[in-house]
Amino acid sequence: MSEKISIGLLGFGTVGSGVVRIVENHQQELKHQVGSSVVVDKILVKDAKKPRAIEIDERVLTEDPEDIISNPNIDVVVEVMGGIEEARDYIIRSLENKKHVVTANKDLMAMYGAELLTVASKNGCDLFYEASVAGGIPIIRSLVEGLSSDRITKMMGIVNGTTNYILTKMSNEGSSYNDVLKEAQELGYAESDPTADVEGLDAARKMAILGTLGFSMNIGLDDVSAQGISAVTEEDLDYAKQLGYRMKLVGVAKRDEGKVEVSVQPTLLPKNHPLASVNDVFNAVYVYGEAVGETMFYGPGAGSLPTATAVVSDLITVMKNMRLGVNGRSALPPLHEKQMKTDEDVISKYFMRLHVEDKAGAFAAITTLFSENNVSFEKLLQMPIKNKDVAEVVIITHKTNKKTYELISSCLTDLEVVKEVKSSYRIEGVSYDE
Amino acid sequence: MSEKISIGLLGFGTVGSGVVRIVENHQQELKHQVGSSVVVDKILVKDAKKPRAIEIDERVLTEDPEDIISNPNIDVVVEVMGGIEEARDYIIRSLENKKHVVTANKDLMAMYGAELLTVASKNGCDLFYEASVAGGIPIIRSLVEGLSSDRITKMMGIVNGTTNYILTKMSNEGSSYNDVLKEAQELGYAESDPTADVEGLDAARKMAILGTLGFSMNIGLDDVSAQGISAVTEEDLDYAKQLGYRMKLVGVAKRDEGKVEVSVQPTLLPKNHPLASVNDVFNAVYVYGEAVGETMFYGPGAGSLPTATAVVSDLITVMKNMRLGVNGRSALPPLHEKQMKTDEDVISKYFMRLHVEDKAGAFAAITTLFSENNVSFEKLLQMPIKNKDVAEVVIITHKTNKKTYELISSCLTDLEVVKEVKSSYRIEGVSYDE
Repeated sequence: MSEKISIGLLGFGTVGSGVVRIVENHQQELKHQVGSSVVVDKILVKDAKKPRAIEIDERVLTEDPEDIISNPNIDVVVEVMGGIEEARDYIIRSLENKKHVVTANKDLMAMYGAELLTVASKNGCDLFYEASVAGGIPIIRSLVEGLSSDRITKMMGIVNGTTNYILTKMSNEGSSYNDVLKEAQELGYAESDPTADVEGLDAARKMAILGTLGFSMNIGLDDVSAQGISAVTEEDLDYAKQLGYRMKLVGVAKRDEGKVEVSVQPTLLPKNHPLASVNDVFNAVYVYGEAVGETMFYGPGAGSLPTATAVVSDLITVMKNMRLGVNGRSALPPLHEKQMKTDEDVISKYFMRLHVEDKAGAFAAITTLFSENNVSFEKLLQMPIKNKDVAEVVIITHKTNKKTYELISSCLTDLEVVKEVKSSYRIEGVSYDE
Repeated sequence: MSEKISIGLLGFGTVGSGVVRIVENHQQELKHQVGSSVVVDKILVKDAKKPRAIEIDERVLTEDPEDIISNPNIDVVVEVMGGIEEARDYIIRSLENKKHVVTANKDLMAMYGAELLTVASKNGCDLFYEASVAGGIPIIRSLVEGLSSDRITKMMGIVNGTTNYILTKMSNEGSSYNDVLKEAQELGYAESDPTADVEGLDAARKMAILGTLGFSMNIGLDDVSAQGISAVTEEDLDYAKQLGYRMKLVGVAKRDEGKVEVSVQPTLLPKNHPLASVNDVFNAVYVYGEAVGETMFYGPGAGSLPTATAVVSDLITVMKNMRLGVNGRSALPPLHEKQMKTDEDVISKYFMRLHVEDKAGAFAAITTLFSENNVSFEKLLQMPIKNKDVAEVVIITHKTNKKTYELISSCLTDLEVVKEVKSSYRIEGVSYDE
């Protein structure tokens, strides 16, 4: 192995600058671990003349991807440019040129992960992507190595910092979704077009990656149903609190008898559940394994240096593998054929908030509908709404399947006494008091 | 690599039976990952005739350690017998016979870790010990790999389940230490001789291991100061709560300008700190890295299957290394010479509870002593104690160094107005509200 390992960076934004900074500042530690010095030799940028926040020798910058992809001196390519088609093309060609690749690109891995890993494996190259899920939290390693002996049956992830910030603020301050979103945008916690975050798509991509690894099954983006937080109201958060819950945007992945479900939705968690106190922009992934039981991994889900930590840790693994001559040997094909649950197999409790006519018999009509479908109530609140002939009813159901619950929901809207189903949320996680 | 990998187990107690169970139940997954079947071939027990909770072919059991250590058919030795001298001898001889070793023995690793890793390395063998710290939580991997690119500056661990159970119960129920200890013993959460747990020795051993890995510095057991929970009272827990803190037995390891401190003591944490809601027998390790910031790893710290999960995950790594022919290449010698802080370098806030004479001037005498030593107060409570001429004073200091604080403490006991320093605790962790 050479005296020096050369890195080519595709992209020089937030994460890219973090990578450059860590590689520069931690040379002594890197050399100790890897046995060679590590140098960022080339960085692909859109505009090499643009002023940069961090000092960089301008000969390192290039506007031509071939200076990295086809450069025989580059050993490892780090893709931190984002986007899908172009990134995919660059990564495939880098691998074909026998360069190892580290990427932070969740969109790409959720869509083309299986393909890219196959290309890597065929070319005897490593392809690592720890930074693609939950930023600085080493969750992929923990699933693939730390819990490799176990059979994982459930994962729940707070894997989107923007929505967690918004829900935390709404819950703590009683503010509206729109006000908090605006504030988050001003603070840089939300994009000017926040759709991918607030509608749960970003979280869905990460859950596809976690599902694939945790269940050893090729879970695609199409297999993940996603619902965002834009319809969540202060009232919902307030009732959740009153009833002993906290609302989070939770990615849920469960396996039962070989069949799996993966979804993302605003979810109520008992307030003493480990995920319930994960606040602000922090991320956490809760993992339940048959043998290990409950574990949780907590940390920063985004940001320049946290995400770069994950990228450089992957780089170290690549470089250790280079020293041992064992690159391209660690990725495993999925053990199981994909088997998704039907809605009848998806079991959970639910929270429902309704407006009903405030008159005799209204309540009975609702309870009859639930009981005819064999769904019982765990908790029930009913209270009149001032100056209106309407009462607000909040229901916490016992466990039921999704198909039955959706049937009940649609029948409820047909009932004359029901003015409106205001909101409806899944409930996950056992309370520690139970 | 052979069709079958043979494991020899030294010890068949709680963890050993868990290992047998996981290896048997997860054959398909193991084979998928390792490429060979995995068989527990021999188990060293004290009494081969004793009835066992799990079914086992009696030809597997042996009372002679040589059947494992010197058995040419055994590939990997798993040490789950506990104790120190004998275990050390067996492990060294196994390594010299070119067998890889996985151990769950924290006492041994805290005392002889450096020696054993050197023997392993000389013999081209792996020696892994994930299970020795925090049971099922993959914290060692996370430090060594997941955060390998970062410079860790602080670790705080709730790494002893027994004491965490006791403090949680005392705090929730207002019960006394002795009552809860007795209950914990009845439930099997505390040993009949609980000394190693309640006096902080068990936690100190784990912190020596974490300190060594996190700071890349040979931290021995002698470098870790340990104070247990046997003197903690209900009053202390009650004041802690009133002032917005939770008390935990915390292992604290900090690095500042190359110097480190490692200690274990009952510690107050702000109630919204991630560690503050780690309750009952759960463990958690909080890690602060320069680049990644705050992370936390949470899970079961003990128990048959959780600990066995860590052992078998180590086994999988050994077996993958066998397949690649790279055993004995992953352990790194410490990068840094050990440099411990002096008491002047150890900085924290403190909680102190005093009984003082309830008369004019008493309070002034105390505050003068603190201010002469340049230590200021963050919070102060004073209240009379019924039917006594004594007032209770609770002080939360601003940050000071340990030497100054201990000087103040000893001067306080000399003051005539001070009847008694009832208790004194370190405070760690920034409140998330600040």
